[in-house]
Amino acid sequence: MPTSPKLKKRPNAPTYDDVVSAAKQISGHAVRTPLLESPLFNEKLGGRLLIKAECLQRSGAFKFRGAYNRLSRLDDAQRKSGVVAFSSGNHAQGVALVSQMLGVPAVIVMPKDAPEIKVSNTRAYGAEVIFYDRDTDDREKIGASLASDRGATLVPSFDDPFIIAGQGTAGLELADQAKELGAKLDAVIIPCGGGGLTSGCALALRKVTPDTEIYAAEPETFDDTARSLAADERVSVKPDQKTICDALMMPTPGEITFSINRKLLTGALTATDDDVLRAMKAAFNYFKLAVEPGGAIALAVAMSGAFDIRGKTVGVICSGGNVDAQVFAAALNVE
Amino acid sequence: MPTSPKLKKRPNAPTYDDVVSAAKQISGHAVRTPLLESPLFNEKLGGRLLIKAECLQRSGAFKFRGAYNRLSRLDDAQRKSGVVAFSSGNHAQGVALVSQMLGVPAVIVMPKDAPEIKVSNTRAYGAEVIFYDRDTDDREKIGASLASDRGATLVPSFDDPFIIAGQGTAGLELADQAKELGAKLDAVIIPCGGGGLTSGCALALRKVTPDTEIYAAEPETFDDTARSLAADERVSVKPDQKTICDALMMPTPGEITFSINRKLLTGALTATDDDVLRAMKAAFNYFKLAVEPGGAIALAVAMSGAFDIRGKTVGVICSGGNVDAQVFAAALNVE
Repeated sequence: MPTSPKLKKRPNAPTYDDVVSAAKQISGHAVRTPLLESPLFNEKLGGRLLIKAECLQRSGAFKFRGAYNRLSRLDDAQRKSGVVAFSSGNHAQGVALVSQMLGVPAVIVMPKDAPEIKVSNTRAYGAEVIFYDRDTDDREKIGASLASDRGATLVPSFDDPFIIAGQGTAGLELADQAKELGAKLDAVIIPCGGGGLTSGCALALRKVTPDTEIYAAEPETFDDTARSLAADERVSVKPDQKTICDALMMPTPGEITFSINRKLLTGALTATDDDVLRAMKAAFNYFKLAVEPGGAIALAVAMSGAFDIRGKTVGVICSGGNVDAQVFAAALNVE
Repeated sequence: MPTSPKLKKRPNAPTYDDVVSAAKQISGHAVRTPLLESPLFNEKLGGRLLIKAECLQRSGAFKFRGAYNRLSRLDDAQRKSGVVAFSSGNHAQGVALVSQMLGVPAVIVMPKDAPEIKVSNTRAYGAEVIFYDRDTDDREKIGASLASDRGATLVPSFDDPFIIAGQGTAGLELADQAKELGAKLDAVIIPCGGGGLTSGCALALRKVTPDTEIYAAEPETFDDTARSLAADERVSVKPDQKTICDALMMPTPGEITFSINRKLLTGALTATDDDVLRAMKAAFNYFKLAVEPGGAIALAVAMSGAFDIRGKTVGVICSGGNVDAQVFAAALNVE
């Protein structure tokens, strides 16, 4: 395992064992999403692509895994006092659904430009929604202040050991399922916003399939993990960046997530919005999946040549499917 | 088990044991497609809906199951002489893909108005495609004559014991997966064209969950199984009927399939093309699945009120996802 001599393990960084514990905790509650393959698409790509379809996860994204692993460990008093989360939408839905399942009151702080489907689903799961402005408000401050006012537990969207370990169960399953198919993974590519899914999966994959390369996939305008890996410290992208990948608009890697990613990742790769639209169309045509823009970023990296898949066996996580119909229809029209 | 005193078991009708044998035969080759659930959609419907996502099956439809069960049992001489199939598209792709996997030459007779994606995929799997006219040509005659000319084995799309048993594995899995979820199935609704999937699943379900109601779902313009059940004999729909469910345009039930369905089905229910479009949109919104029109007919029946799902637990098979992008985009625009 590659290590950085400069870096000591953080006391609150999760380990592989925490991912295994999370897998037990969510078993029977989360969907064991299928690992899918298309012979036609493989032929087109010249490699073997295995898609972990996390858009089929409960709440429509991998976020259910971390939310369940975190909330199911709250004690009775904490459950009664409720939870607060801030989220661009998928963490919101995951926390809202798990809260509903466990009878925990939930308040979710969401950007006012979040996709309609994410807002309405979050409300439909019974959560209270409070909006903020991505450009002018500090969502972390709003969340912390709400939590303090209400005596509620703040549930971070990525920088939390239980959340990271929960998301890592997707990587653990991917490795197991590849083994069942008799496939030896040359690489796994993972959508990366704050880095929760990437770092959790990296913990799992580095342990169970140590020779597999592990890449974070980012929109080219939100390549903060790529830049941070290059700088060997957490750096941010310039302000006012745009992307259609609403789920990946994190300007800076998380503290805990990056402490893991800098040690375990092979690298970080980027794709454009057009690459993402083409990946969404391919997921529809070849895999019969509705994948949202951010959920398709790793597939976009595998298709665009940013990662050269030819002759290799590559696992790709399609991390979510919460996309408004008109955005999806636009992807179907792309050349 | 309801039985008809008038009817003796046909010598070539498959049994439950043939479905179990098929499940062993396809294991490791077919996808164990997930059984999916949406808490939000359940709330909307007032019942518990479990979707068996066969659009995620290899070749994009359940047809792979029957094709693999049939072709993998051919002997070496038969494999060398090749196979002939006639199909509106999903059986075509299933047979073509399995033929490619097993190194068997395949000729497929398809209607000239088949969806572009089904034709191009069939060719991409290496099969030779010959077109016929749905209104003027007799595809069975064309298929039989091709098979005879080439010394090839004809692989029927539904009226064959190995095909039926293979399709039945979807029902066997559905019952197992419902049990894993702790769900007791009040009913299962199954898309029905020629009746291969319906009769195969009925064989499995009647045995492993005898109290579960079993319904065929048909387009209202191709309700030949409903009419045949009412008449207690095989009757056809009027000629020149139309539907967007290209996979379900069979005017008459199969002989073997109907001999099973008349004994085991609770009934047959229908839905309109508009119901189907709404079901496709719901499958996208709540389940993140791309389902083709014919594949959505059972969901359409569950949503339209043709079957009253309130207070019940109902399994629904979404049988395929091979739909052209413009048709899917139209479904996303339906109210």
